[in-house]
Order: sequence, then structure tokens, then C-alpha cells
Amino acid sequence: MGGAGAEAVIPLAAVVGILYALWQWFVVSRVKVSGYYQSLDTGNGYHGGPVFEMDRTEEDAGEGSPDERIIMAKCAEIQHAISVGAKSFLFTQYKYLSIFMTFFAIVIFLFLGSVNSFSTKEQPCTYTQNQNCKSALANAFFTTIAFLLGAFTSVFSGYLGMKVATYANARTTLEAQKGIAPAFKIAYRSGAVMGFLLASSGLLVLYISINLFKVYYGDDWEGLFESITGYGLGGSSVALFGRVGGGIYTKAADVGADLVGKVENNIPEDDPRNPAVIADNVGDNVGDIAGMGSDLFGSYAESTCAALYVASISSFGINHNLSAVLYPLLISAMGIIVCLFTTLFATDLLKIKAIPDISSVLKRQLLISTVLMTAGIAVVTFAALPKNFTIFNFTNDKHVKNWHLFLCVSIGLWAGLVIGYTTEFYTSNAYSPVRDVADSCRTGAATNVIFGLALGYKSTIIPSFAMAASIYTSFRLASIYGVAMAALGMLSTVATGLSIDAYGPISDNAGGIAEMAGMTHEVRRRTDALDAAGNTTAAIGKGFAIGSAALVSLALFGAYVSRSGIGSIDVLDPRVFAGLMVGSMLPYWFSAMTMKSVGTAALKMVEEVRRQFNNIPGLMEGRTKPDYASCVRISTNASLQKMVPAGFLVMVSPLVAGTFFGVEALAGLLAGALVSGVQVAISASNSGGAWDNAKKYIEAGASDHAKSLGPKGSDAHKAAVIGDTVGDPLKDTSGPSINILIKLMAVESLVFAPFFAEHGGLVFK
Amino acid sequence: MGGAGAEAVIPLAAVVGILYALWQWFVVSRVKVSGYYQSLDTGNGYHGGPVFEMDRTEEDAGEGSPDERIIMAKCAEIQHAISVGAKSFLFTQYKYLSIFMTFFAIVIFLFLGSVNSFSTKEQPCTYTQNQNCKSALANAFFTTIAFLLGAFTSVFSGYLGMKVATYANARTTLEAQKGIAPAFKIAYRSGAVMGFLLASSGLLVLYISINLFKVYYGDDWEGLFESITGYGLGGSSVALFGRVGGGIYTKAADVGADLVGKVENNIPEDDPRNPAVIADNVGDNVGDIAGMGSDLFGSYAESTCAALYVASISSFGINHNLSAVLYPLLISAMGIIVCLFTTLFATDLLKIKAIPDISSVLKRQLLISTVLMTAGIAVVTFAALPKNFTIFNFTNDKHVKNWHLFLCVSIGLWAGLVIGYTTEFYTSNAYSPVRDVADSCRTGAATNVIFGLALGYKSTIIPSFAMAASIYTSFRLASIYGVAMAALGMLSTVATGLSIDAYGPISDNAGGIAEMAGMTHEVRRRTDALDAAGNTTAAIGKGFAIGSAALVSLALFGAYVSRSGIGSIDVLDPRVFAGLMVGSMLPYWFSAMTMKSVGTAALKMVEEVRRQFNNIPGLMEGRTKPDYASCVRISTNASLQKMVPAGFLVMVSPLVAGTFFGVEALAGLLAGALVSGVQVAISASNSGGAWDNAKKYIEAGASDHAKSLGPKGSDAHKAAVIGDTVGDPLKDTSGPSINILIKLMAVESLVFAPFFAEHGGLVFK
Repeated sequence: MGGAGAEAVIPLAAVVGILYALWQWFVVSRVKVSGYYQSLDTGNGYHGGPVFEMDRTEEDAGEGSPDERIIMAKCAEIQHAISVGAKSFLFTQYKYLSIFMTFFAIVIFLFLGSVNSFSTKEQPCTYTQNQNCKSALANAFFTTIAFLLGAFTSVFSGYLGMKVATYANARTTLEAQKGIAPAFKIAYRSGAVMGFLLASSGLLVLYISINLFKVYYGDDWEGLFESITGYGLGGSSVALFGRVGGGIYTKAADVGADLVGKVENNIPEDDPRNPAVIADNVGDNVGDIAGMGSDLFGSYAESTCAALYVASISSFGINHNLSAVLYPLLISAMGIIVCLFTTLFATDLLKIKAIPDISSVLKRQLLISTVLMTAGIAVVTFAALPKNFTIFNFTNDKHVKNWHLFLCVSIGLWAGLVIGYTTEFYTSNAYSPVRDVADSCRTGAATNVIFGLALGYKSTIIPSFAMAASIYTSFRLASIYGVAMAALGMLSTVATGLSIDAYGPISDNAGGIAEMAGMTHEVRRRTDALDAAGNTTAAIGKGFAIGSAALVSLALFGAYVSRSGIGSIDVLDPRVFAGLMVGSMLPYWFSAMTMKSVGTAALKMVEEVRRQFNNIPGLMEGRTKPDYASCVRISTNASLQKMVPAGFLVMVSPLVAGTFFGVEALAGLLAGALVSGVQVAISASNSGGAWDNAKKYIEAGASDHAKSLGPKGSDAHKAAVIGDTVGDPLKDTSGPSINILIKLMAVESLVFAPFFAEHGGLVFK
Repeated sequence: MGGAGAEAVIPLAAVVGILYALWQWFVVSRVKVSGYYQSLDTGNGYHGGPVFEMDRTEEDAGEGSPDERIIMAKCAEIQHAISVGAKSFLFTQYKYLSIFMTFFAIVIFLFLGSVNSFSTKEQPCTYTQNQNCKSALANAFFTTIAFLLGAFTSVFSGYLGMKVATYANARTTLEAQKGIAPAFKIAYRSGAVMGFLLASSGLLVLYISINLFKVYYGDDWEGLFESITGYGLGGSSVALFGRVGGGIYTKAADVGADLVGKVENNIPEDDPRNPAVIADNVGDNVGDIAGMGSDLFGSYAESTCAALYVASISSFGINHNLSAVLYPLLISAMGIIVCLFTTLFATDLLKIKAIPDISSVLKRQLLISTVLMTAGIAVVTFAALPKNFTIFNFTNDKHVKNWHLFLCVSIGLWAGLVIGYTTEFYTSNAYSPVRDVADSCRTGAATNVIFGLALGYKSTIIPSFAMAASIYTSFRLASIYGVAMAALGMLSTVATGLSIDAYGPISDNAGGIAEMAGMTHEVRRRTDALDAAGNTTAAIGKGFAIGSAALVSLALFGAYVSRSGIGSIDVLDPRVFAGLMVGSMLPYWFSAMTMKSVGTAALKMVEEVRRQFNNIPGLMEGRTKPDYASCVRISTNASLQKMVPAGFLVMVSPLVAGTFFGVEALAGLLAGALVSGVQVAISASNSGGAWDNAKKYIEAGASDHAKSLGPKGSDAHKAAVIGDTVGDPLKDTSGPSINILIKLMAVESLVFAPFFAEHGGLVFK
């Protein structure tokens, strides 16, 4: 394939993906939700009054019987409240984010500009001999621009994802009145909107940026792809806010709502009398949709940037072979097309007749996309890459054949599937691990917690081997470029992964709306089934996220090492080993911060909910409405304030290590944080997922064994609820936040590498 | 100092230490405990009948009023039951241990003998040029002998420690009738017996072995000190059984007793009606005394062996400078003398007048021994070492000055103090972290668990920095030898450390005996105070154990790298990074196994206790006695069976990694397990310690804040009990067992290094 072919295929696939997302959105929008409050939406944030009235009918407009119209109106109102709450959180977050981004953009510019004392003179290239490259100051400027572009794209896709999710939740509830299949399709299509928008717009913006930057850089591909790394840093910085801030939000609301509602006042989950119930539902959208989206977008952007950077200083780049350099983008473009076909299986080809079909269809999505993508990788690889080439490999070059790269990308892809299926085994209550945890509830909460922690620890085994195998193979075959491509392979089906993942919170919300709108038991049973399948897919999504984060970080780490000009990282260098020791501690420090944040924010929520139960007369009896807005406000402010120290730790650690202790100590720090963080993240999210589903297993009481532990309210069930509450911050805040820690530190080090190489290691100088 | 001086000083100090221990034992034995059952002790194991009768007086012999004599007789009987139970566990353990040791001794001999195809011919030395060294077969033989000697010494000191602890517990109870000071002294002296016996006999046996081996090896110091490394492996192998088996025992009994006793039947801790109460008390002795002793003995033996090995291939060894080579032993000899003086402060110089004095005296022990030892290190260093010398440093030699080594040893010593004090801060209820955890019990068990986990995570920060600083400094100054000496520095005050540590379980047992013998509230209050101080010192001891384990493992790791002939361990070698990833997972796998073991063993115990409560009429009313022996039997069998898979993992992982994936992959595996394991171990033991003391804080109700959470039986207290139960296996089984994992894998790799270098890496060949 020639350069022009690659140039054409990439934007085409991205545009097709975007159109497909819009079409899905259109299909979802055909389910009508109308009611009183929609006309009142002024877009100015939350209105603060009671959200819905149980006994109002005359204002309702729309078709159907009066009963149906009441329910539809209630759904519309609840949806509206959730959407307003989510928007209010995101806008507050954007305020903080824009301050942070401005500040950090200045830091990037100053640090990188100072590498060559802000000189505007061209300098000799590092890798391409006998040629001049653009000045360090120009690179600083364009890195900053790329950084802002990455951030903007991430914010844009996250916002739209949240928008469609809060648009789809009530629609899913309404469709659940018709049956399980239509409800599933609506939820899945809405997830697909998010998945395709994110994958396609990420690809498109990156593609356009490269082409625009090229106008300035011309033949200086080193500088061009060095500055493009800023795109990854921008994406990941937004993910810090999305994952950490959103993660704290969602669990502060959830834990707070559960502690007072379920435990103290003995009212069911999603009961409209609970003042924190809207905040809880908002949390699902801002944490699990916007947060997860920004996390995976970050991984995607970073692995592409790492691959592009290494390619630019390899034979592709030095020979100016464009289609070969753009290979990472071509893989992503192929991924969009493959995922498009895969989605058809869920929305049109496979039939859902009964509840067990849901999770099998979702699981099959992963398998189908992986199989199809393997063929897709082969096509792209043999079309785009020359048969033989050399890849930059630290101090020397590595001879690589094109089928080596086929193996690298494929092993990443299949490792993702292995991690996903392992996660499912450890967190779904269809298998023995979760059932054992449920069984341990017989002897109380303590044994439940012990067994759940042990399960999480155990669940790290297979993923670690899968990652080690893909790291070994890809690293061996094509050095750091191979690792970056393995990461991209794992992320190539990100559109499907995100669709499945976003499906979860949408179904969760749909269940909440059904409960709050007082819909029939049958509807609630259907939304519960959708939700239970979503719980497992959420865990699978987290598995993918951490797996790809690990590969991405390693690729970034390798790129960092190249860029800082060190030939090898010897574990037996005292600086490296000391860095390794401190680095492996960082995930613990970071987790302590995020968990504590959830704890204290949840306590604030508990106080507010208690205050409302005590001070609002008739609340418990359902005669008056709680003040949902004040709970939303508490979660919003607490989460954004509490994320500051954690964010500070992530951003400052590499700067301190690099500036004061030098590039070797920083390399040790990154490697330590990576290998230790992966374990912390996997064990935390799987323990949490298992506790959640052990509780659901007891509640559902589908087998004799489950019945012997239940029903709701039994001692075993109470023990299970405690486990579930412990797991909430682990699986939705501290665990997934580790991804950000390891990726952001690595990409930040990569961006600042020229500075550290020039000025770093003050203490040892 | 000449070689003869060193030769004389070492055994002298060891003998002084042993005599001092025996004298302390003699002082303890002057407290008379006599009663009915002592005369019946046939030494044939547990007699199975009821242990003590509440209403029997006529058989009692001894002085004092009839009341006093009843109490004394009861104490004697309980002590007897505990001692018999502990003995029965240890003897069963020795049975398994001897099978394991025989098998493993054969493996060592065969693997190492095969290095040079079992040839008996001498071979050219590796490091000393132009000289012949003994055959690989001879080295295999002597390594095996050293292995057995190390194992024997560890078993011997562990057994005596357990013996004196079960001898001292009732004596401490009886002295508590007189007051807090005499009780403290008895408990502390008994701890000192253990501490000095272990430190001194370890030193003495090692010293004698070196001298005996020298008869055969003559001038071949390379071979001599290579085979001496077997001593460390032997010590650590016993620690596997002591720490892991003992750890499972103690917590299976404790958790089982608590779950049925405190939670289900609402009877107090240590109530004689609880059938698991004797097993629980036995557990304190076999887990915390014998287990901890073997762990620290292992660290001591391994760091000495690592230092000796590196010294032997450095200029000391090549120039045959005996006093310099024996520098590690001289440091330990000095440590014994310093600890002897330090102990005088606790037993004679400092006065204990009130309860708060206890923990301040214990804490001061650490400070005094550290300050005195710093001077001691200076004396030994400047007397024994030449001013300038070279140390083996992988591919080249490193020029070192004697004061560099003074710094190395001292920084290890002081890092130990920092780790100890940090641990105290995070686990003592005198400070805010534990109080915050206690406060979180207001909102239930879930927040308690979340806050406790976060506390444990946070408590890794300072220790990691302390370890990183000492690793960096010692590594930089004197390479791997410096690290080994830093570890020995941390362990130089091991006699004091172990005294403090063994004091804990003795006091815990004393409290149990006071409760079971129905002694007055005042006595119980005194033993509780002793116990509470012991809880914190136990946590400090664990901090020391993991800190020294980390340094030791790194030293062993370095020795392994030297011995397997690789010059550097590049993180960017795919084998190394894959090893790093899998290695950092191993502590999780291992913890999952040990935690699950405690869980299932505890469930067996729960069933047995429930069975007895249901089937033995009058048990709850205190009219009949439970069958203590069956609980002891269950704990013994369950713990030894359940430790098999965990032990298998530790022993087999390095063999598989080295044989199939080669020395580089194994190096990565060791480094990953080390840095990740340290964090798991520290966080687990500190979370556990904090939960325990948060519960005690609420129970004691010493402040207004504590009173607002209590009293016993309040909701907050119930939540605290759940946290305590979760923490039990973390702090006493899975956390401390990690030490064994990282040390044993490292020393095993060191011992098998010649084999791996010759035959390893089958997969990549």
C-alpha cells in the first residue's frame, strides 16, 4: 500500500465510525421519552427543586394510556435529574480541568523550551544523520499544542458519551416494558455510540494533527512525532480527572447512599426516598462512562504516540515510508471497521430470547471481534509494512520482518481476551470463586472480606502470565515498538470493548429509574438481569483497561529510555533499585489517598442523608421528596477537592525523581510502579466485582445453595452487603485509578525526557 | 586486629550470650508454679482429658493460702495444656520438616553435584587466579551439610524459645498478682532467653562450621564460603514451616475461637468455656515465638552468608585476610554484647511504676541498642578492616574505605529504627491513624475495613523510603557487600528485637491464663496492659523482619547475579521484564494461598467449636469442660496440610524460572517479588495491627472519644471486631509469610546458581 492509500483509508474509517455512532444515536432517539420537566430544562444546571411528583398527571403529554403516560413522565423526570446532575459535575470538573491544563501547558512549554535555552535555531537531528531538525523551542510549542488537542478530544468524547448514556437510560427502562430483547438493544446501541465516537474521533483528530504539523515540520519526522507525544499526555491528563475525580464521585455517592439507606434505614437500593439516589445514578455516568472512556482514550492515544515515536526514529521514519509509519493508525482504522461488523451481531444477528442469553451475547462480542480482528491485522500488516525493516532498539537496530509485527499485534489482542475471560471467571457468580465468597458469608462479614481479598489476589495470576507472555514475545520480536503495537492490538477492538462497558452503567441506571418510577416487578426483573450482566462486563472492561495500561506504560517507558539517551537500565545500579523500591510503593500511596477520599466524601454524604431523614418530615413515609440536589453538590465538590492530592502525587513524582535523582532513578521508579501497580489494580477490581456479585447471587437466590444463604436481610446477606461496600471504592476508584498512575507517570517522563537528560539528577551531581 | 583476635572474640561473645540467656532462664525459674498436673506430665503428648477442674483443691501442693494455691494450681494446669499443645504441634511439624529436609538435601546435592557431572577432580578457581579449587561435587556435599546445620540450629533455637515462652506465661500471670513491674520483668527476661539463645547459637554454629569446613577446604576460600551459603538456605527452609505453618495455625485457632466465641455466643476472649481457647494460646507460641524466631534466624544466617560469600571473592578473601572476611561475624558478636547491656536497662536500670511506662521502656530498648550499637560498629569496623580494600562488584572491583562500611552497617541499623518507629505510629492507638480507624467504626464494619486497608497502604511510604535510602547508600558505597552488611546492621540488635517481640505473646498468654484461672480484675487489667504494649511491639518486630528480609533478599540477589555470571540485569531485556511482571505477582498468589488456608482451617475450627457447644451439655454454663485437645489437633493438621501448596510455590518457582527461562528471567522474578512483596507485607501487617488496636482502643475506653464509640458490644465495637478478624490472617499469616517468600526464593536461587548458569534457560535454547 502506498502512502496515499494509507492517507485515504485512515480518515475514511474514522468518518465511517462517526457516522455509524450517529446512526445508532438516531435509532435510540426513536424511543420517545416525554414529560413535564423536559420543557423546563434551561441548561443552566440543576434547578434544586423536587424532581418528580408521584401524583401529577394532567401536565403529561404523549401517547398511550394515562398510566403509561404517568410512568413515561416519571422516567423523563428522573432521567432529566440524572442528566442535569451529571452535567453539573462535568462542568465543575471542566472548570478545574481548564485551570490545570493551562498551568500544565505552561510547564510543558517552559521545561521543553529550556532544553536548548529557548533558542530558535535549528539543530542537528539525533537519529537521522547529516540533516537539520527543528529547534527545541518549536518542539516545545507543538508538544503543547498536541497536549491541548489530546485533552480536548478526550473531553469531547467523554462529554458526548455521558450525554448519550443519560439520554439512553430511561429509554432502556421504557423498552424493558416490552421485553428483554428491545431493552438490551437500546442499552447496547447507546454504549456503541460512546465506543465508536471515542475510537473514531481519537483517530481522526490524531490523523489531522499529524498532517497539519507536517506542514511546519516537513522532512523533520523526528521532531514531528516527538511533539505528537503531547497528544497522549493530554488524553491521559484528562483521564486523571475522569477516572480519579469521577471514581471518587461515584463511590462517595454509592457508599453514602448504601450506608444510610440499606444499612441504617433498611430501604431498598434506588429507593426514591433516599436523598443520595440521584447522586448515585449520576455517579454511574460520570465514573463508569466518562471516566472509563477517558482512561481508554488515554491508553489508545499513548500507545499510538509511543509507536509513532519509535517508528519515526526507525528505518520507516528515516526512509520516510509514510504507510509504514502510519501502521499504528491503520490498525486502529481496521479496528473500527471490525467492531462495526461485530456490533451487528449484538444488535441484529444474534437473538436474545431469555435472560441467560444476555451475557452470552456480550461475551461473544469479545470473541467475534478478536477473531475478526486477527484477520484484519494480517491484512493491514502485509499491505502496509515492507517485508524487512529495522526498528530502533536502544543502542542498536533490530531487524524485523513484517510477520513479526503481525504476531506482536495479535498477541496483544488475544492477551486482552484471556484477561477478559479470566476476569469474568473470577467475578461472575456463574462460577465457583464468587460462590465460595458468597458461601463464606455464613460465618460473617470478616470471612467474606478475607475470602474476597484472597480471590482478588489469586485473580492476578493468569493476567500476569498473559501480560508477561505478550511483553516477552512482542519485546523480543520488535523491541519497544512491538510492545506499543501489542498494546494497540489489545486496544484495537476498543469500540466493542467500550460499547460493552458503557452498556453496564446504562443498564444500572435503567434499573434505578424503573425502581424510582415504581414500575412493575417484571420490568425491574428485566433491568436487574441487564444490570447483572453489566457488572461482569464492567469487570472485564477494567481488566482490559489495566492490561492495556500495563503494555502502554511499558511502551512509553521504553520510549522514555530511548529519548533520555540511556542504553540500559541495570537493576544492579543502586539508583535504579532504589527507584524500583519507591516506585513499587507509589500505587499503595496513591490507593491510600483515593480510598481515604472515598471514605471521607462518603461520610459527608452520610451526614447529609441522615440530616435529611431527620429534618424533612414525611420523608421516610414517601410523602415528601428529599433534596437530591444537595447530595449531588456534596459529591461533586468532595470528589474534585479530594482528587487534588492524588493528582499531585502522580504529576509531581516523576518530576521530582527525574530532576533530583536523574533518569536512571526515574526509570526504576516507573518500572516499579508499573509491575506493582498492575497487581494492586487487578486484585482491587476483581475483589470488588466478586463481592458485588456474591451479594447479587444471594439476593437472586437462583439455586438451592444461594437460597440457603438468603433471602435479603439474612445474616449472610448482611455480611455480603458489607463486603460489597468494602469493594465499592476498590473496584471503582482506587483500582482503576492505578491505570492513570502508571500511564501518566510514564508519558510525563517521556515528554520531559529531554529536560531530565539535560538538567536532571541534581542530587547526584 | 589479627585473625587470631577475631577467631577468639567471636566464640567468646557467643558463649557469653548463651550464658546470659541461661541466667535469665534461671531467674525466671525462681518464680514457682506448681500444681496437680505437672506431676502427670509424661511427655507423651496431649492427654486428651479435661485440663483443669474449677473445684479441686485437695491435690494442690505449694505455699500460700488455700485460695492462692488454687489459683496457682489452675495456672500450672493451663500452662501445662498450652505447653503440651505447642509441643505436639512442633513435633508434628518436625515430622513433616524432616521429610522435606531429607528430600531437599538430596535435590541440593544432585543439582549442585551435576554442575560438573559429578566429577571429583579439582577445578581452576573462578576468581582467584592460577589456583585450583575443590570439585563441584565437594561443594555440593558441603553445601548440603551446611544446609542441614542451618536447619538444625533454627529448629533448636525455635524449640527452646517456645519452651521458655510456655514456661514463662503462667509465671508472668502469677507475678502480675504482685504488680505490674515484676510481671513485666518476667515476661521480658523470658523474651530475652529466646533472643540471646537464637543470636548466640546462630553465631556459634556458623563459626564452628566455617572452622571445620576449613580443615577440608584449606586455602580454597571460594569453595568454602560458597558451601557455607547452604547454612542460610537451611535456616530459611525451617522458617518456611515456622512462619507459614505456624502462621496458619495461630490464626486458624484465633479466628475460629473468635467467630464462634465472641461473635456467635457472646462470651469473652480467653473464656475457658471456649473449646478453641487453648489452641489459640498455643498459636501465640508456635506462630509468634517459634515462627518469628525462625524467620529472623533465617534473615540473620542469610545476610551473613551473602556477606561472607562476596567477601571471599573480594580482596579480603583473595589475600586471605581472616579478620576482614569474618567482619560480618564480628558485627554480630558485638551486637550480642550491646544487646546484653541494653537488656539491663529493661530488667534492672529503668523503673516501671505505672502502665504507660511499659511501652516507653520497650521503645527505649530499641533506641538504646541502636545508639550503643552505632559505637560498636565503629569499634569493630576500624579494628577489623584494612583502611582500603576492593570489593567484588559484578564485572569489576570497587575500591572501598573502611569508614564506608561503617556507614553501610549504620544506615541499615538506623533504617531499622525508622521502620520500627513508623510501624509504631501506624499501629499504636496512642496516635491519630488508629484513632481514625476506630472512629470509622461509627458507620460500620465496611468503613472500618476501608480505612484500615488505606492505613496499611499508607504505612508503606516511610519504610520504602528508608529502605531505598539504605539500599542506595550501601549499594553505592560497597556494592552488594554493602547491602548485605546493611542487612546485618539492621539485624545486629536482633537479640533485643527478639526479646521485645517474644515478650508480646508471653504477655498475651499470661492474660489468657489470668482470664481462664479466674483471677481478679486487677490482675487481668495488668496483664491486658502488658499485652497491649506487646501488640505494638509485635508490629514493630514485623516491620524489622520485613525490612531486614528486603535487604537480605537484595544481598542474596546480588550474590546470585555474581554467581550465575551475568554482568548486568537490564530491565529492557524482555526476559527480565517478563520475570519482573510475574515476580511482582507471586506475593499475591502466595498471600491468596495463605489467607485461604487460614479461612478454611478456621471454618473447620468453627465447626468443631459449634459441635462441642451443641453436643456437650452444660458447656455454656461452665459446668463441664470442653475438649480442648480436639481443637489443638484440628489446628495442627490443618495448618501443616494447608502450608504444602504455598511452600511448593516458593520452592518450585525459582527452579522452574531458572531451569526453563534462564538466569535473566529468574533475576527479574526475584527483583519483582522483592519490591512488590515488601509492600504487600508491610501493608498487611500494619492494617492488621491497626484494626487490632482500634478494637482495643474502643474496649479500653480511656478517652472521651473512645468512650463515645464503646462500650464492648456497641455497634461500633462490633464493627471493630470484624476489622480485627479480617486483620488476623493479614498480620500474622500472609503478611509475615511474604518475608519467607522473598528470602527463600533468593537464597535458593543463589545456591542453585551454578546449575542454572550451566543448564538453565531450556525454553530459549
